Formats: sequence, structure tokens, C-alpha cells
Amino acid sequence: MEAARLLAEHRLPGLIVVDERRHPKAVLPGSQLLRAVIPGYVQDDLALARVYDEGHADKLTESLRGKTVADVLPRTADRTPPPVVDADATAMEIASVMAAARSPVVVVTGDAHRTDAPMIGVITVSRLLTRLLATGSGPSP
Amino acid sequence: MEAARLLAEHRLPGLIVVDERRHPKAVLPGSQLLRAVIPGYVQDDLALARVYDEGHADKLTESLRGKTVADVLPRTADRTPPPVVDADATAMEIASVMAAARSPVVVVTGDAHRTDAPMIGVITVSRLLTRLLATGSGPSP
Repeated sequence: MEAARLLAEHRLPGLIVVDERRHPKAVLPGSQLLRAVIPGYVQDDLALARVYDEGHADKLTESLRGKTVADVLPRTADRTPPPVVDADATAMEIASVMAAARSPVVVVTGDAHRTDAPMIGVITVSRLLTRLLATGSGPSP
Repeated sequence: MEAARLLAEHRLPGLIVVDERRHPKAVLPGSQLLRAVIPGYVQDDLALARVYDEGHADKLTESLRGKTVADVLPRTADRTPPPVVDADATAMEIASVMAAARSPVVVVTGDAHRTDAPMIGVITVSRLLTRLLATGSGPSP
């Protein structure tokens, strides 16, 4: 429920999941969170979704209560580890890593080569483009 | 360049591409737009991205000038048509379509079964969750 609220309030397409040491472990796309709360028989036959009217929609969020992020993540084998860059990565490096991973976001850590380096922050593709467009039109601060 | 500005200004992870009749034709993820402007040899060997310092970053946006959205879209065979729902779709239907397509967005048209129906709007996963969470906590307006 907390993950759903974060996605809603910050208008995010997904979340980065970290462990207790802030090591980035997985991406939780918003669509994956939805998968976890839609009855299996509706996922198998989309036509059945029609029988749910708006009054039943609260059942959807009801099924989020008591579930953890770990419950709704794909099985370990199917998880996509988030792409990672160093804090000193250049704009070209960030763009290259995003493009190669086809990801709208990269995680920033102190050392991208250490899998246990804690997350410092994230850079979205829109943030990178904002910076590149500002740089392209003149000297950056 | 206009597509890059839209992604940046509206903080979007991607865009819906429509034809001259507003029929939704493809999704342009921000990461795909980046692919189109990174030199091929950097995409082949990410280590080469390091040789670009911040001063060269404006070359990145420079290469966007004169390119069209059609130029940076994947080849037709590799394009993902955006998931589509009717204007009268229920919340459960929207959630089901998003989950099945693993998409953070669905396009709304007057008739999802007609491929030539013009786009009315889009619903993001965060917008859907906002509505579901509001519905779940009491009667909706």
C-alpha cells in the first residue's frame, strides 16, 4: 500500500527496491504492482474485467493491504536489476547505460562495479534530457 | 528536439506517437530517443563513453537537431503498439490491460477494437493508482 501511494503521489512509473543497506536490488514497475492485485482469472481472460464495476474497484486496493513489496516483486530469476552508474559518471555514460538497458531510470552509487554499494540517488531520462538540453543551449552552471 | 523537450518538461518516461489522424501508432521510450543520439561505437563499447566529458555533452543534443520522431523510432517490426482501452473501460479493465502489457500507460480511444480510432487521452499507472487509492478510502465523487 505504501509503494502504491509513493507511485501515485510522486507520479512515478516504478520504484527502485533496496535492501536494508540501501543496495539497489530490483525495479518494481507500477504495472507489476497491478499484476499482483488483479485476480488470476481476470489476467487469464481480460473480458472478465468488465464484470467488475467501479464499486468493486476498491477490492483492488483492498488486496494490497497486508502485502509487502517482496510479495509483489517478480520471482528472483525474473527480476531486472536496475542499471547503475557511478556518482562521477559523465552525461554520455548515463545516456549510454540507460539506452543499453532500455530503462527510464539509472541508480547512482559510489561504485557501480561493487554490487553492495549503497544507492545515492536516481536519475530519470527526463532529468537527463533537461540537463542535456540546458547544456546544449549554452554554458552550464 | 521537440520530443526531447516534451519528455524533459513534463517529466515523462516516454511519449505516445500518433499519426495525422491522432491514431496511436507507437510508444517512444525516452531511452530509445537516447539510443538514437549516442554514437554507435559508444553503444558497442560503453567504456568509450568515459572519453566524452561534460563539454562534449552538447554534441548529444546537437545530433537531435534535424532528426524526426520517425527517425528515432525502432523499425516498424520492433515497435510496440501502445495498449488501448475504451473511454468506458472500468478501473479493473484499465489495470488488467496495463498489467498484461507491462506498460506504465494506456491510450484511451472511443473504440479500442478499431485500430483507426483517434486517441482521446492517456492514463498513467500513477494516475490509476491515485484514483484507486481514493476510491478505496471512501465513496468516489
